[in-house]
Amino acid sequence: MRAAVMYGAGDVRVEDRPDPKITQPTDAVVRVVASCVCGSDLWPYASMPATDTGRPMGHEFLGIVEDTGADVTGPAAGDLVVAPFTYSDNTCDYCAKGLHISCRYGFDGVDGGQGEAVRVPQATGTVVKLPVNADSALLPSLLALSDVMTTGHHGAVTAGVGRGDTVLVVGDGAVGLCAVIAAKRLGAERIVLAGRHEARTDLGRDFGATDVVAVRGEEGIARIRELTGGVDKVIEAVGTRQTFDTALGAVRDGGTISRLGVPQYEEGPIGPAVFMRNITLTGGASPARAYIEQLLPDVLNGAIAPGRVFDQTFSLDQTPGAYQAMADRQVLKALIRP
Amino acid sequence: MRAAVMYGAGDVRVEDRPDPKITQPTDAVVRVVASCVCGSDLWPYASMPATDTGRPMGHEFLGIVEDTGADVTGPAAGDLVVAPFTYSDNTCDYCAKGLHISCRYGFDGVDGGQGEAVRVPQATGTVVKLPVNADSALLPSLLALSDVMTTGHHGAVTAGVGRGDTVLVVGDGAVGLCAVIAAKRLGAERIVLAGRHEARTDLGRDFGATDVVAVRGEEGIARIRELTGGVDKVIEAVGTRQTFDTALGAVRDGGTISRLGVPQYEEGPIGPAVFMRNITLTGGASPARAYIEQLLPDVLNGAIAPGRVFDQTFSLDQTPGAYQAMADRQVLKALIRP
Repeated sequence: MRAAVMYGAGDVRVEDRPDPKITQPTDAVVRVVASCVCGSDLWPYASMPATDTGRPMGHEFLGIVEDTGADVTGPAAGDLVVAPFTYSDNTCDYCAKGLHISCRYGFDGVDGGQGEAVRVPQATGTVVKLPVNADSALLPSLLALSDVMTTGHHGAVTAGVGRGDTVLVVGDGAVGLCAVIAAKRLGAERIVLAGRHEARTDLGRDFGATDVVAVRGEEGIARIRELTGGVDKVIEAVGTRQTFDTALGAVRDGGTISRLGVPQYEEGPIGPAVFMRNITLTGGASPARAYIEQLLPDVLNGAIAPGRVFDQTFSLDQTPGAYQAMADRQVLKALIRP
Repeated sequence: MRAAVMYGAGDVRVEDRPDPKITQPTDAVVRVVASCVCGSDLWPYASMPATDTGRPMGHEFLGIVEDTGADVTGPAAGDLVVAPFTYSDNTCDYCAKGLHISCRYGFDGVDGGQGEAVRVPQATGTVVKLPVNADSALLPSLLALSDVMTTGHHGAVTAGVGRGDTVLVVGDGAVGLCAVIAAKRLGAERIVLAGRHEARTDLGRDFGATDVVAVRGEEGIARIRELTGGVDKVIEAVGTRQTFDTALGAVRDGGTISRLGVPQYEEGPIGPAVFMRNITLTGGASPARAYIEQLLPDVLNGAIAPGRVFDQTFSLDQTPGAYQAMADRQVLKALIRP
């Protein structure tokens, strides 16, 4: 089969790889119908040291089950399923708490989703059957449940967003935009979106952002405070030290910052100033699997349309170009059709 | 009047100061019946640069109202009252949310509580009348509501402690021990106390600790994990980088660390590892005032006895010795009687 493999920064190649096979009785093999490039794929695309072996890429995909191991219950050959971006058995103590990202039987990327087919470990727990056909117009929004929409939702849930709230979303990438959808869905009344790319913040307004702040740093903080007097709930959907500082500057005493962007820093300012202000820092890598069934009805009935974040479709062979277009910020999020 | 003034590290003097007077219509003057030395007073006692002017000390006291300004309602001359460690009007937007520590009209230490009398700004909102006489045996436990007990409670509340929980309390100082009381009061079933001073951890067992871990660092983390498999709720009641690392090592993925000790560090480890584990960091300086009425009934009916943390009483003139005894860890918490 053909699949995308990263060999180092800026070096993604589409090449022949062995067809995935059932190796554990808990596996399934899924033929990919749609996958995508994640914002987090851009970090290694910017900085990964060159390697001879390469790393199969992609952790968001939906597709049709082709084969299942002897122990798999639920998903069966022919089913259209979506897979969240990590594997989980859906029954361990962490999964039982809704923290599938910490599943005791989960592990990362055996195969990547940016390919023709994928071996999915812990298939019973991992994949969710979709009640539509593979040619459904809802496919992009259903694919968004594999990561960006369930991640945005994680931010809104952990920030404690509820009816009538004012929420700040920092970042106009796909996750930030999905956080806007999620905040609105949970009842936020005012949603301030901090982002500088007009096409993206326009989509954010469509999704429910009531205000856009297009300046950064101290000026951005001042503008957010001028608009809101400070916000109780912040969803930080980028992961740089600057965006974290923006969150800290904009949040009110006693407020909550939920982080969704993988931090690009090891240490952060959690000293006496943050302590005296009673700021809560929460969020983290989304337990996407925990939220799929919960969000699925709203995608099916059209209440939310996170698939609008996909602004360009690429063939599998065009995947290297999809990375470059996203790195150049010409494309918000690339959909890949094998 | 006589009052304790700090002139630098290791230099506390008891000297004559002007008698406090009403200067604002919202003030009260309170004659101190009992005050104490706070663990946080030991930080400047260890490191404050020498000064000619000095800093009046003490932010925990109870006493009898002597005089009130024209705008004061509620507290009246002759009332025995307890004052939390910061002033607050109890009506601003932050106070209304229970975040009195961030009161828009609060400010720190005009007079210190380690003296014969104190001018209390925002007296209507700040002090709470106590329904006992000044010679009540409950006085130490009522005094504990000014800080250590309400701070321990803040830790348990922000950590989300509830019925049946396993909780780790890091630190066997007065705040840590009060956090044990608070965790038990909120229904925790298992309370692991990390501390190395046997007399203190014994008191912790009396307060409800079910296990004591008396070793530090990696060994301490390993012992806590062996006992519990990791804990979902940690109350960090010290504030050093080492105790924070202990909290991080002992907490389970998806768990919460509530910090009560003023951090003795500016930056802390909140990078990808903490993010991937979905650790929530919460707590901070306690809004003590918010909790006094809530905890008062349990002190009055004897359900909790946080006053047991006071293991030695000093006269006001002996205050310098009280600091030194606490710094030398010969005394857990010093009660001062003017």
